[in-house]
Amino acid sequence: MATPPATAVIPLRSPIMRSFRHDENIRTGSVHDVDLPVAPERFFASDNFSGTHPRYLDAITRANAGHVRAYGGDEHTSRATRLFEELCGEDVEVLFTFGGTGSNVVALASLLGPAESVVCTNWSHIHVDETGAPEKFLGAKLHDVSTDDAKVRPEHLDELAGALGNVHHVQPGVVSITQATELGGLYSADEIRAVCNRAHSYGMRVHLDGARIANAVAALGGDAHTFRALTFEAGVDAVSFGGTKNGMLGAEAVLLRRGVGSPRAAYLRKQATQLPSKQRYVSAQFAEALSSGLWIETASHANAMARRLYDALSDLETLQIAPPAVNSLYPILPPAVKAALQEWNFFWDWDLSRSQVRWMTSWDTTEADVDAFAAGVRTALS
Amino acid sequence: MATPPATAVIPLRSPIMRSFRHDENIRTGSVHDVDLPVAPERFFASDNFSGTHPRYLDAITRANAGHVRAYGGDEHTSRATRLFEELCGEDVEVLFTFGGTGSNVVALASLLGPAESVVCTNWSHIHVDETGAPEKFLGAKLHDVSTDDAKVRPEHLDELAGALGNVHHVQPGVVSITQATELGGLYSADEIRAVCNRAHSYGMRVHLDGARIANAVAALGGDAHTFRALTFEAGVDAVSFGGTKNGMLGAEAVLLRRGVGSPRAAYLRKQATQLPSKQRYVSAQFAEALSSGLWIETASHANAMARRLYDALSDLETLQIAPPAVNSLYPILPPAVKAALQEWNFFWDWDLSRSQVRWMTSWDTTEADVDAFAAGVRTALS
Amino acid sequence: MATPPATAVIPLRSPIMRSFRHDENIRTGSVHDVDLPVAPERFFASDNFSGTHPRYLDAITRANAGHVRAYGGDEHTSRATRLFEELCGEDVEVLFTFGGTGSNVVALASLLGPAESVVCTNWSHIHVDETGAPEKFLGAKLHDVSTDDAKVRPEHLDELAGALGNVHHVQPGVVSITQATELGGLYSADEIRAVCNRAHSYGMRVHLDGARIANAVAALGGDAHTFRALTFEAGVDAVSFGGTKNGMLGAEAVLLRRGVGSPRAAYLRKQATQLPSKQRYVSAQFAEALSSGLWIETASHANAMARRLYDALSDLETLQIAPPAVNSLYPILPPAVKAALQEWNFFWDWDLSRSQVRWMTSWDTTEADVDAFAAGVRTALS
Amino acid sequence: MATPPATAVIPLRSPIMRSFRHDENIRTGSVHDVDLPVAPERFFASDNFSGTHPRYLDAITRANAGHVRAYGGDEHTSRATRLFEELCGEDVEVLFTFGGTGSNVVALASLLGPAESVVCTNWSHIHVDETGAPEKFLGAKLHDVSTDDAKVRPEHLDELAGALGNVHHVQPGVVSITQATELGGLYSADEIRAVCNRAHSYGMRVHLDGARIANAVAALGGDAHTFRALTFEAGVDAVSFGGTKNGMLGAEAVLLRRGVGSPRAAYLRKQATQLPSKQRYVSAQFAEALSSGLWIETASHANAMARRLYDALSDLETLQIAPPAVNSLYPILPPAVKAALQEWNFFWDWDLSRSQVRWMTSWDTTEADVDAFAAGVRTALS
Repeated sequence: MATPPATAVIPLRSPIMRSFRHDENIRTGSVHDVDLPVAPERFFASDNFSGTHPRYLDAITRANAGHVRAYGGDEHTSRATRLFEELCGEDVEVLFTFGGTGSNVVALASLLGPAESVVCTNWSHIHVDETGAPEKFLGAKLHDVSTDDAKVRPEHLDELAGALGNVHHVQPGVVSITQATELGGLYSADEIRAVCNRAHSYGMRVHLDGARIANAVAALGGDAHTFRALTFEAGVDAVSFGGTKNGMLGAEAVLLRRGVGSPRAAYLRKQATQLPSKQRYVSAQFAEALSSGLWIETASHANAMARRLYDALSDLETLQIAPPAVNSLYPILPPAVKAALQEWNFFWDWDLSRSQVRWMTSWDTTEADVDAFAAGVRTALS
Repeated sequence: MATPPATAVIPLRSPIMRSFRHDENIRTGSVHDVDLPVAPERFFASDNFSGTHPRYLDAITRANAGHVRAYGGDEHTSRATRLFEELCGEDVEVLFTFGGTGSNVVALASLLGPAESVVCTNWSHIHVDETGAPEKFLGAKLHDVSTDDAKVRPEHLDELAGALGNVHHVQPGVVSITQATELGGLYSADEIRAVCNRAHSYGMRVHLDGARIANAVAALGGDAHTFRALTFEAGVDAVSFGGTKNGMLGAEAVLLRRGVGSPRAAYLRKQATQLPSKQRYVSAQFAEALSSGLWIETASHANAMARRLYDALSDLETLQIAPPAVNSLYPILPPAVKAALQEWNFFWDWDLSRSQVRWMTSWDTTEADVDAFAAGVRTALS
Repeated sequence: MATPPATAVIPLRSPIMRSFRHDENIRTGSVHDVDLPVAPERFFASDNFSGTHPRYLDAITRANAGHVRAYGGDEHTSRATRLFEELCGEDVEVLFTFGGTGSNVVALASLLGPAESVVCTNWSHIHVDETGAPEKFLGAKLHDVSTDDAKVRPEHLDELAGALGNVHHVQPGVVSITQATELGGLYSADEIRAVCNRAHSYGMRVHLDGARIANAVAALGGDAHTFRALTFEAGVDAVSFGGTKNGMLGAEAVLLRRGVGSPRAAYLRKQATQLPSKQRYVSAQFAEALSSGLWIETASHANAMARRLYDALSDLETLQIAPPAVNSLYPILPPAVKAALQEWNFFWDWDLSRSQVRWMTSWDTTEADVDAFAAGVRTALS
Repeated sequence: MATPPATAVIPLRSPIMRSFRHDENIRTGSVHDVDLPVAPERFFASDNFSGTHPRYLDAITRANAGHVRAYGGDEHTSRATRLFEELCGEDVEVLFTFGGTGSNVVALASLLGPAESVVCTNWSHIHVDETGAPEKFLGAKLHDVSTDDAKVRPEHLDELAGALGNVHHVQPGVVSITQATELGGLYSADEIRAVCNRAHSYGMRVHLDGARIANAVAALGGDAHTFRALTFEAGVDAVSFGGTKNGMLGAEAVLLRRGVGSPRAAYLRKQATQLPSKQRYVSAQFAEALSSGLWIETASHANAMARRLYDALSDLETLQIAPPAVNSLYPILPPAVKAALQEWNFFWDWDLSRSQVRWMTSWDTTEADVDAFAAGVRTALS
């Protein structure tokens, strides 16, 4: 089958460079000479490669009838807002947005005070993968704490808190954590609570980048209670709630605990160019997702497909794969095998220095896709 | 029929306040007691109240099959880009975006140099209706020149050019014009060329906010040649090409003449949070629009519906309506009549000090809508 | 005597262009052939052309002994802070800075909230003469209201207040007035109170750019009570207190009513690069000024010299000079006379379209300077 | 003698926290009971604690005569500019500024392009000690590379260069190095050249923060040739040339290789609020410094005093002091001794986790100061 252009072969040694996997200018070199089976219909490259779930397309089509007020003055937005309030079990402000980077910028801007910085990990999307959008819009420093597992811990905050009250240092004001993490890991509710408590003890606020919050909720309980336990009940002050990676069409939401950040959050969304004029198309998808539980269903499926792939290949020790917490695996592949497989069915490199790649499942990955992919891997390694 | 909440009754005396029409907190007062006919199915409030054209929904659905590369690495984006290049007849960089404010910010950021300002009119969307998004992202002044008709003229630039070379003044660097204007007017190709020539003679660049460029093209010739004559051939350096108001689902594009602005425009799009991850849904709509001419067809229809409404009511001198250049009329209504009509079929106030309102048609306004609306107006005024 | 390069001859028709007087690239043309008397020792160009008062140099020298804590931890700063607190009769935060633009930026940043704009006049220094520094640092719009006399009035705020609460418009948050104004005029205490009351009624805060506050205080009463009546008692929330134009060496101060703006003002000063490391040299001058009344004395003298110049020339109707409120006159001069006089003893053009110039006196202008200058003008006009 | 308030006792474990030494809220605890000799007249705390060299005060006084053009249109500025051009041996743009943070911000803004970041070390002043001023003004990320010795090396750039060309990552655009480093170390000319060459090979530009460049020049050769070899000849594109720490009164300069950064650097200085109106007082000091060599003389003296202190105490192994490269020593002191000495003659903590402090000499430190200080240390340790 036709594959997307193959990935770069430049060594990826640091978090900053990790995402260099996006680059496509350099084709892989010699291809392993092996007779691979028929490739799966879908890639294991990214949940951003997948499309829109048919039920979200249906919701969009249903919402398309006639004239409604623009900029969120429509009934779909009212309904989705109520559903988010129920989900959160809190008095939250709900702001629908177009994209994930925009969602993060709006949430951070709402929480950040004058002369403050954002604390995040060296792996965080806001630090590595957003082209400096947060610094540009916020005019603020991102303090990246060095971690192996992409998780902020209370101790990190103790260290940075030494700057508090000193006029020569930017003041750590917001802690941003990612759930599921950029490395496919999970914070427990207790871990999140511990970070929030420590942050609050220093007067800092907590943002959760939930580009894959659905995968985390699906993995850790799978219901509204799980969501609350991982977010607002744990002390999180703002959530970027992802929809796009989970099967929606350009749909994200910012959830803000009222009384914590700026009361001007809706203005900041407009300033950040993230206020959809025909907002019904964003909110109607969330109304569908939240009312039917589809958001957890699709994430649960993606997680299950990653587990199925793990189960199919975990006996191959050379891969060194760990059981997936959510929807990604990080195997090691011999270079020639890697090249052959990427040519066969494209996926991204992760750490070229170790010949490590990332396999990611999506809401639309089928069991047949997994089985065909596993068969191909097994053949290539044989 | 159920109407959206009625508009504010606070006097609108300045360009800044014009858009206060968005406000909805204050209900209109006493309603004119008259027996109005059945209201039209659609409103005459805004092209933002209309939905998505079925052919764009079809294009989205067709584009939904399978996995494709994210962030514009897909074939829909390649195709739409080629179609835009053909339309422009120039070497342009094409950047698809989510929204109009974002599109303007990306275009301006690409053109603006250090310590420069943007020249625009007092009526311009970037100055009045974007919550300061340009100033926030650009960190730059917007010089609003005072006009009655929302059109920048070469003489405005002469005046501002006095600041050039003086270190105490911000340097006028980009001129932003809007076509069709925020007042429903049109620049001729000659007028645009005159502004561009003068701007270039001062070393300034020219941006065209084309949120309704389709309506302008439809009104002034209706083909690709018209588009070129009004934009790149006239000397425009960057165009915000609007899709959403013209029947698309969250789809805009920035067209940049290569070699003029920053070669980092694509990075600025990402920084401005306007890079769609599943970009196929934006670009597939533009591919449909440009390949079939649908973008001109729908705009032409909206223009025709405004003309039909004008023709149906122009004999009523009390309305003081001028023939529409594109898709909006600005009649004067006696206050009680206005209130009654807004209750009956919502539309926005324009200048409350004069009891002036705006009627706007859309791609989906039908002849029956126009006739029903005209009949209601006629009844209310009788 | 040697004169600075003469001024531009390009017409100055708008506030934006007014300051084009700074330009010096174009020499004046033919010079009026007249035998002028000996020129004064000092220019009548700007109070920025004058030097440092000897008593401020003495204060600097006295403060120079030994080692003291940096960044304001010294006794001069403590003393000057106490003196400012006494002067204000309020609980104010006092922040010493290097320059006037910096002082304005720090004050505005302290007062401005998210998504807010600054209201000022078309003549204001922050709008015209600071190269966009406020927009750059604040990321915010400056709304310039059009005035003939450079004074904000309550009615201006009524007009802009229409935007309040509307998410599509930037929110007017801070009103900035200048005392004495950029046109050499004065607000009465009542006028300032009226602006402050109206601003506060809308939830806006008030900044006073006091680059020449000393001249205003000297003109309107000449003591601490006058200062209070014109500032904090009238409701002003922040004052940029000018020192440099009034005879100091790089010394300005920001006075902030506590409890109004950000508690992080001191951090914002550092962010705005306006925290002096060896702060004793700034604060020692203010300690001298405030403890001895020198600041009012020098301003009073400058005002008196302007009045003396007016008295010496007011019979010449062709000049069309009004009595000066503070230290500047704006006469009309026949072009050839103007050129001859500028060649003889440099001063700046003001409005070239009217052949209007500005004559400005300073703390060091002597009676002999005034008399010599008046004699020259009289000769040139004869 | 009266000492400044003592320093904090909170552990300083990271670069971010290093500067927490500025904090003064927490007094040191129990004081070592020892009979210390008479304390030196001056502190060994910081070169920011020292005052202004008498010859700079003289230069200011001489420059004070009469009226001159403001904003750098004076002869002192012309002369100092010529002297800097000679010093650099290059076509440089010279911009005088008030302060060091401002100087850095102006230099970086001049060099930085759209969507670019600044590479610096974890110890750098711009990263740690400027309250986020660079991020605020530049709207850009600072990439801090982790180092033990506060020196950027070519290899650091290789790692970051992986992001070049990838639209999802901010683009490393400027490398900022500090000479002498924040840890009192020195780059050799070869080391600087290696960084510059590597940076240029990636299209990056190089800024040198020379807050203590004079100390470096004095240590590495002591003449104009040394300066050139360490800066422009080595490939540096912009230098923040420090004056204040080296005995001047609020005087810094930005030196920009022409043709590299923005031609609008002078406008950026004004935007950054760093354009002195009465600029003669800044430039007259540099004219004195450069024409007489005083800048190297004073730095050389400061360096010599640090060496004298080292020589006087290097036999005390408990101190673990290394020979100073410039004007600072970083000894280890037993906690009680440390507290007693700080009470006796104040100096700052450096790394509280190791009970390490910083002793810094200045242009005005005398041999008697050093001898008295060394005697006190020896007594306290005995």
